[in-house]
Amino acid sequence: MALVVQKYGGTSMGTVERIRNVAKRVAKTYDAGNDMIVVVSAMSGETNKLVAFANDMCEFPDNREYDVLVASGEQVSIALLAMCLKSMGYKAKSYHGWQVPIVTDSVFSKARIEKIDDKKVRADLKDGTIIIVAGFQGVDKEGNVTTLGRGGSDTSAVAMAAGLKADVCEIYTDVDGVYTTDPNICQDARKIDKVSYDEMLELASLGAKVLQIRSVEFAKKFNVDIHVRSSFNDNPGTMVTKEDKDMETVLVSGIAYDKNEAKIAVMHVPDKPGIAAKLLSPLSDANISVDMIVQNVSEAGMTDFTFTVTKADFKKALAITKESAKEVNARDVVTDENITKVSIVGVGMRSHAGVATTMFETLAREGINIQMISTSEIKISVVVDNKYTELAVRVLHDAFGLAGKSAAME
Amino acid sequence: MALVVQKYGGTSMGTVERIRNVAKRVAKTYDAGNDMIVVVSAMSGETNKLVAFANDMCEFPDNREYDVLVASGEQVSIALLAMCLKSMGYKAKSYHGWQVPIVTDSVFSKARIEKIDDKKVRADLKDGTIIIVAGFQGVDKEGNVTTLGRGGSDTSAVAMAAGLKADVCEIYTDVDGVYTTDPNICQDARKIDKVSYDEMLELASLGAKVLQIRSVEFAKKFNVDIHVRSSFNDNPGTMVTKEDKDMETVLVSGIAYDKNEAKIAVMHVPDKPGIAAKLLSPLSDANISVDMIVQNVSEAGMTDFTFTVTKADFKKALAITKESAKEVNARDVVTDENITKVSIVGVGMRSHAGVATTMFETLAREGINIQMISTSEIKISVVVDNKYTELAVRVLHDAFGLAGKSAAME
Repeated sequence: MALVVQKYGGTSMGTVERIRNVAKRVAKTYDAGNDMIVVVSAMSGETNKLVAFANDMCEFPDNREYDVLVASGEQVSIALLAMCLKSMGYKAKSYHGWQVPIVTDSVFSKARIEKIDDKKVRADLKDGTIIIVAGFQGVDKEGNVTTLGRGGSDTSAVAMAAGLKADVCEIYTDVDGVYTTDPNICQDARKIDKVSYDEMLELASLGAKVLQIRSVEFAKKFNVDIHVRSSFNDNPGTMVTKEDKDMETVLVSGIAYDKNEAKIAVMHVPDKPGIAAKLLSPLSDANISVDMIVQNVSEAGMTDFTFTVTKADFKKALAITKESAKEVNARDVVTDENITKVSIVGVGMRSHAGVATTMFETLAREGINIQMISTSEIKISVVVDNKYTELAVRVLHDAFGLAGKSAAME
Repeated sequence: MALVVQKYGGTSMGTVERIRNVAKRVAKTYDAGNDMIVVVSAMSGETNKLVAFANDMCEFPDNREYDVLVASGEQVSIALLAMCLKSMGYKAKSYHGWQVPIVTDSVFSKARIEKIDDKKVRADLKDGTIIIVAGFQGVDKEGNVTTLGRGGSDTSAVAMAAGLKADVCEIYTDVDGVYTTDPNICQDARKIDKVSYDEMLELASLGAKVLQIRSVEFAKKFNVDIHVRSSFNDNPGTMVTKEDKDMETVLVSGIAYDKNEAKIAVMHVPDKPGIAAKLLSPLSDANISVDMIVQNVSEAGMTDFTFTVTKADFKKALAITKESAKEVNARDVVTDENITKVSIVGVGMRSHAGVATTMFETLAREGINIQMISTSEIKISVVVDNKYTELAVRVLHDAFGLAGKSAAME
């Protein structure tokens, strides 16, 4: 008898009818003799509706209350799934984050899971009860409701799997697994059978949107194999697992893109020590993550300092940066929200030269100007005008020979 | 400096814009130097939407999970109101039922409040924080979420006022207060300035719908004065308070009606001891409340036995009664769903004779046949054909001189 953790996302839980299908799938795994923990997201659209309420209410919603608001969506899902399973004759019980409890730090909207208390859940599992856990939410030590950031339910699932030493962690989604790139852009995108944690981290953080980054970090840390698969069929999906020899033979595993960033450039600042810190510290103090950072070559002792933040943080980041820019006597702050970050990812890059060259030449051939570049051991990212997004992804997908036989998802 | 509890219902909290108005009203009372606890309901329509989800999901939703589901509506309201107040520069903090905690028994959907822990709330009040509490919900000793029944937010407010020994408990609603009768039926219905707990209990249970019955029971038990008033203007509303001398001078305080009952008559049963018990016990076993009960004068050792139940319980009650009727050899079971219960209520009745006579004569004069009668110390209820509802209410309102100068609400 195995302990199986399954996670169902917002699309899988999108309607009463779909929740009924999730219940059937859960029941099937349970009937096969497994103990079950099911982590669910809010019904699709619900979280967006709640976020819209917050934005209608005020420009900068209070962090604590924002989390109270958006955590309510998952409460609806756990109740509906649990009552459906019960009406089918199964023992089932819903758990809020605070009921488990899933204890997090107090960084609202981006809380990190610190501890999962398995006592109550274990007792219910022993009793044959199917445990339904609200994803995305936790509780801090003071008893405040926290949330884990968009996509946080994946992390909830992996954390439950790690905390309860589950045998399997299945993340059900509306696609068949992780693709070499977005099949909506590339008809010949191919499902990847196996991908390493590190590659997945890069793919996830770069916008592949299949798994939340933190869930992969968590999985890597606690060695949880994640099986990403579709809730609409029985096809095997993608295993996210430890790196192995096979993986290194592939130069580039996938192409990701992210339209969710915006660029802020502080123009004409003195090129002297401490400028970067002066501009960036107030942002990190406000809990805003800066992604790419570029500083121009100095000209007459002056330079331009450019960085990207998520569009969600953009307004706040801009307000803060305008203040800091004044303090460092910058000439101007220029912004661009029409950018896309396109990235190629693969552990094979480590041992193969020339990957960057191929990338830049491929883009140049299509007349696509590169605005910013950033690299890591296993990925290269470039920022381009967002009108080139699809073109860039397609030519890179071709250039690295990613097209395969698997049919792209509809 | 006083401690003020205010409660805002679903209509007052119906949109982001309306919540903003609630925030302004709260701020005004706070600025006048008061400590504040604000209890809120779900945005109007939200709870109905959640109930519809449950009914779509299965015929008999599990009680525990039903409460988890419907409690989510209030979570949205507390967060939005708290973030609005914070954006206006006030200290504010939302509390779920379990965060206070408001401890209840474990009767899901109809839980009774057992204890309110005032420690955390007091500490925040001392700090000048405006406390926003989710109405309608609590938590039982095992940490399950419970709800208090429709209209339960009124009870939450009164319980918070009792638990924290508040000076004032204001229930804001979409009407100006408690009226002598439904202004939609009687143009000259008048707002009542002051009404006793007992009168309010009769008016509430008879369908006046302004306050949940339990909130009034609670207020009576803990001697909390309730001020029922409109959230859309500054008019003084109705004080629900201890009975005093003034009240007794009024013969009839209000006329209530209830279209939500149905009649079941068991015809021609032997008039011998134990028949009533045989017919009613199976109903109470099925948790169905019977309201009015009438047994006809015996004729040749046979009688008819008639009672009313809520329309929601009607189908189930009928099925049960048909079974019991067979067992007692009744000739027939006759039903009528087209009935209305009309009631006159007033503490003055106790010390004045002739109130019943006036009521019956008034109805007779209009040719309205009385099907059933039931009385208590301070109320008389009659069942009539529901086509006479408006007529009966209007002529009784006139007969007892309830019309007044106050304009009826629009």
